[in-house]
Amino acid sequence: MSHERYRPIELSFEGGVVVPADSTPLSVRFAHESAGERLVPGFWDGGRTYRVRFAPEEAGTWTWRSESAEDDSLAGAEGRFEVVGGEQRGPVRVASRFHFAHADGTPFRPVGTTAYNWLHQDEPLYSQTVDAIADAGFNKLRFMVFPQAGGYIEHTPELFPFERTGGRWDVTRPVIPFFRRLDAAVEALGRRGVQADVLIFNAYDRGHFGLDELTEDEDDVYLRYLVARLSAFPHVWWSLCNEFDQLKRPRQRWDGVGRRLAEIDPHGHLRSIHNWIELYDYNQSWVTHASIQNGSATTGFGRANLYRDVYGKPVVLDEIKYEGDIPDRWGGLTARQLVHQFWVATVAGCYASHGESFVTESGSLHMVEGGRLRGESPARLRFLRAILEDLVVPGLDPIDKWDDPWYVAGVSRRQYVQYLGASAPPAWEFRLPIGFPGERPEIGDVFEVDVIDTWNMTVTRVGRRFTLTEVLRNDAYDRDSAPLELPQDEAVALRITRVGA
Amino acid sequence: MSHERYRPIELSFEGGVVVPADSTPLSVRFAHESAGERLVPGFWDGGRTYRVRFAPEEAGTWTWRSESAEDDSLAGAEGRFEVVGGEQRGPVRVASRFHFAHADGTPFRPVGTTAYNWLHQDEPLYSQTVDAIADAGFNKLRFMVFPQAGGYIEHTPELFPFERTGGRWDVTRPVIPFFRRLDAAVEALGRRGVQADVLIFNAYDRGHFGLDELTEDEDDVYLRYLVARLSAFPHVWWSLCNEFDQLKRPRQRWDGVGRRLAEIDPHGHLRSIHNWIELYDYNQSWVTHASIQNGSATTGFGRANLYRDVYGKPVVLDEIKYEGDIPDRWGGLTARQLVHQFWVATVAGCYASHGESFVTESGSLHMVEGGRLRGESPARLRFLRAILEDLVVPGLDPIDKWDDPWYVAGVSRRQYVQYLGASAPPAWEFRLPIGFPGERPEIGDVFEVDVIDTWNMTVTRVGRRFTLTEVLRNDAYDRDSAPLELPQDEAVALRITRVGA
Repeated sequence: MSHERYRPIELSFEGGVVVPADSTPLSVRFAHESAGERLVPGFWDGGRTYRVRFAPEEAGTWTWRSESAEDDSLAGAEGRFEVVGGEQRGPVRVASRFHFAHADGTPFRPVGTTAYNWLHQDEPLYSQTVDAIADAGFNKLRFMVFPQAGGYIEHTPELFPFERTGGRWDVTRPVIPFFRRLDAAVEALGRRGVQADVLIFNAYDRGHFGLDELTEDEDDVYLRYLVARLSAFPHVWWSLCNEFDQLKRPRQRWDGVGRRLAEIDPHGHLRSIHNWIELYDYNQSWVTHASIQNGSATTGFGRANLYRDVYGKPVVLDEIKYEGDIPDRWGGLTARQLVHQFWVATVAGCYASHGESFVTESGSLHMVEGGRLRGESPARLRFLRAILEDLVVPGLDPIDKWDDPWYVAGVSRRQYVQYLGASAPPAWEFRLPIGFPGERPEIGDVFEVDVIDTWNMTVTRVGRRFTLTEVLRNDAYDRDSAPLELPQDEAVALRITRVGA
Repeated sequence: MSHERYRPIELSFEGGVVVPADSTPLSVRFAHESAGERLVPGFWDGGRTYRVRFAPEEAGTWTWRSESAEDDSLAGAEGRFEVVGGEQRGPVRVASRFHFAHADGTPFRPVGTTAYNWLHQDEPLYSQTVDAIADAGFNKLRFMVFPQAGGYIEHTPELFPFERTGGRWDVTRPVIPFFRRLDAAVEALGRRGVQADVLIFNAYDRGHFGLDELTEDEDDVYLRYLVARLSAFPHVWWSLCNEFDQLKRPRQRWDGVGRRLAEIDPHGHLRSIHNWIELYDYNQSWVTHASIQNGSATTGFGRANLYRDVYGKPVVLDEIKYEGDIPDRWGGLTARQLVHQFWVATVAGCYASHGESFVTESGSLHMVEGGRLRGESPARLRFLRAILEDLVVPGLDPIDKWDDPWYVAGVSRRQYVQYLGASAPPAWEFRLPIGFPGERPEIGDVFEVDVIDTWNMTVTRVGRRFTLTEVLRNDAYDRDSAPLELPQDEAVALRITRVGA
């Protein structure tokens, strides 16, 4: 049998008992001919059925052998398979310190959206959401495993994750149809090219369903089960919680869950946690990237980039408020404002996420239940994503990070993006900042410039090239060329690409 | 014998050998009648003389007993003394999470300055510096123990901290006159009410003196000696290094020194480290406050406050560039710009430090060698300090931290400061932001307003009071009062103090 690299392989086993004492009672040791071993946890999938899912990253011959300390009938099975290269890109990981790339090296530029309670909705809303998000061009979706209660949500889902025993959730008894639904949801996103940003715990239960009352040991049982089921899907991202600090828990509890997740996930997916009013310590080594709520970090230049300095990791501004029309301050951005903030985040060397808070037919919001998108920002964000995917550099980094009054980002002497804000001046003189460290531009360097209208979604190649005539300590100029005329008062960005020595 | 609380007590001992193998071969265990024990390291002070310095914080009866594993003649001495209250305020510590107060509870509002190489200058420059700084009203001075080399400094000091043996610095042989000079320097600052912000290691040696080539073990010997000598001075702050990342050292080495410092300092002084282009991880538990270089964090509103969120500790912007006239970007701020940035830092709930980079007669800069101050900012910073010391609240915290377009800081329903920027509008309508958490203002609350001209250094009490007539979810207004006329285009702040229900 032969498998494509990065695709999940599923092995099935029959155990000796109908309901096991432990929902993850087996593991399989996969060994590659030269790349070493991976110990992959398996999970109970109902009745006597157990499964192990593994997505190999190395081509070549793999052998495997099952292990179980609890059930002899699960131990000692073995096999072999061949893995070949293919068109899969593999999981998204951190690349170039502040950016992302698939395991095969292809850059990934997150332009994601949010539908917290999507998993728990009925059809046709559930499927419509996937279509709407994928059709709009979003490539990441933030959603919660546990159902949301309160705050624009009066929905009691059909399925819950665990059986109830003695008035409590019994985390050792996962509800198989619930988790099969979760599998299918993750698969559905994958088929449409959308990364599944899985919010593992839920700060919005407020005692309604009682899923916020698990003990630390129960958290761990659930975490192991969730990781065993989902980790082999290449497009999974982990987020411990949305607005973690809404829950009254000691910070150390989150630290422990995060470290545990890093330890047990055999596929090493991206890991973060998202804040309400108190920031998490994203400097901790288990955190791969900062997932931050703070809209104001993108309402002005020179802010979001400070988070990059602090964490030295990719920064995803996963809640910068929402396009919508509700009176809450977090839900009343115009599309123009939201798109503007995305571009501010972009030239800060960060990423941002979308969400929509128009009230839906059911009285809920898209960012809660999903459904069709109503706003004007998604088309512009798809355009932004295309601009990002066309970059010839691994990512945009502030060039002269604490001193450039124009906040130009890019990679020095290769490609630059300058966002002129929501209302462009009538003209622009060719100028590049010079930062440290980075390659210094030189007199005679030749550049092409594209004028990007971020709202009207046009890219216009300027019909002349620019050549540096003056290189100072901190900036470089083409003094011989006339200033570039711009579409005044539009939200304009410039893409400046070196095309010659 | 009876001592005043917080004042250093010095015990002297005579050892058995002239030059000890270890520069800190003894310690003294001080025991309070009810507050427990303090183990205080002692130090060699030349010949057979050893000293132990301790500043007790608890009034009452203390007993002590000396210990030494290396020299019997230093062990087993004992004594007793009484400590009484007095007028001393004690060491500055973190208070109200983001601010500072002396051990006795008196708030401390740092408005400091910088003269890195001051300690190593000859008279009269050395004494002039202390006078100039104290007369100008600065209450903290950042200076280095090790001499600076290169970059506006061509000075070889008379004294070095260690003897040289076999072509290397021998850290076990401290040069006593050097450290007595350091004692005297710290004492001189204390007499003038200036906190001594001691930069322990030095990133500017660049191999010139070779004091940047100590091993980790040598660092530790020096650190223990320095702490034993200086810790009992109540006004000491520790900073591991200025621009630590100029030195090519693994980050873990600094982490270790910081943890060690926290462990061995018997008086628990403030501890930080200062960056060049890479921020340190100030979330680490050994760090008491963030000491950050980033001028751009104070050139716009809504930036420096992000550091507070990240670290949950006091933030001191210890290098926001300097008032001066040199061509380097870090040394060419106008006084107006520097004072403006201090006020931006203030309403961000942070603190900042001053420095002056006019070229001196010797070709150096005040921020390097000290001397008289030439700039126009010190008088305005003394005025700022007086405003801060007049506050009736423990400190200024952003009231509605990510949403207030006016960046008002203070303590809700007690006192507020709003800085209107470098160029005030002609009038201001009475408005307060409402944040979360914090006490909500109520209709009928009465406020007095002072108009603070931050450059012309005037405080003008507005001759009428304001009463809240409307309290919305996120702001409160006095709709019945006419707008307040302001000194248009001046750099104006408002102090708003509740005076009635």
